[in-house]
Amino acid sequence: MDNCIFCKIIKGDIPSYKLYEDEFTYVFMDIANDIDGHILVIPKKHVTNVLDCDNATLHHVADTVKLISNLLVEKCGYDGVNVLNASGECAGQTVFHLHFHIIPKKNNDGISAWPKLPGGTGVEAAYKKLKEMLDK
Amino acid sequence: MDNCIFCKIIKGDIPSYKLYEDEFTYVFMDIANDIDGHILVIPKKHVTNVLDCDNATLHHVADTVKLISNLLVEKCGYDGVNVLNASGECAGQTVFHLHFHIIPKKNNDGISAWPKLPGGTGVEAAYKKLKEMLDK
Repeated sequence: MDNCIFCKIIKGDIPSYKLYEDEFTYVFMDIANDIDGHILVIPKKHVTNVLDCDNATLHHVADTVKLISNLLVEKCGYDGVNVLNASGECAGQTVFHLHFHIIPKKNNDGISAWPKLPGGTGVEAAYKKLKEMLDK
Repeated sequence: MDNCIFCKIIKGDIPSYKLYEDEFTYVFMDIANDIDGHILVIPKKHVTNVLDCDNATLHHVADTVKLISNLLVEKCGYDGVNVLNASGECAGQTVFHLHFHIIPKKNNDGISAWPKLPGGTGVEAAYKKLKEMLDK
């Protein structure tokens, strides 16, 4: 897509800190500098996010997320990962080309890569509301 | 797996707020009550997390994450989702059966379902270190 910064990165028109690529996916550093090792996994095909992604492309991205996560543990001294995605502006998505974030984690690193959520109004009530709408 | 709470939920030995199931996956409410609509998508097959999940199972889970995310937008008045996963105790994983969290989001809901990260030591240095280890 012409105006997509990630499409330009894939084509090499914009430089990136590339870690890996294959036929379907491209992996590079997030430049937010919000935590060391923050990695993005994207499909080469332009899709907006999880909502409009065809299943085959989603599978390629999932495979690469798994591959890179395992390499981080096997080769880079990490013990696990958080995998994060924002689909939609309301979810904090700012680049509208599907991307999964990998945050590499170590035991006792003292870092939480999990959101602080505000608390709900009760699981049973929330469930009933959702279930009713889903069943319509 | 005998002592896995999510395997027991799938079997019906422990009750759950079930939203959906198919041959390969099971979807139910997270009971943390940390935000309304917090949903878990899990495979029926017991795997620990992204790191040890076979690709076919990961694809089934990804497909269901996409399906449920779209239903939340189409039927339940949401505008997008955050999709979150913790793989490993270091990442905050507490139940050792693969699960993806879906946090449904609305425009202007004033809620961030994104972690506050501590800041890095510089993307270029972090990249060089990672790339060197990955290329070994």
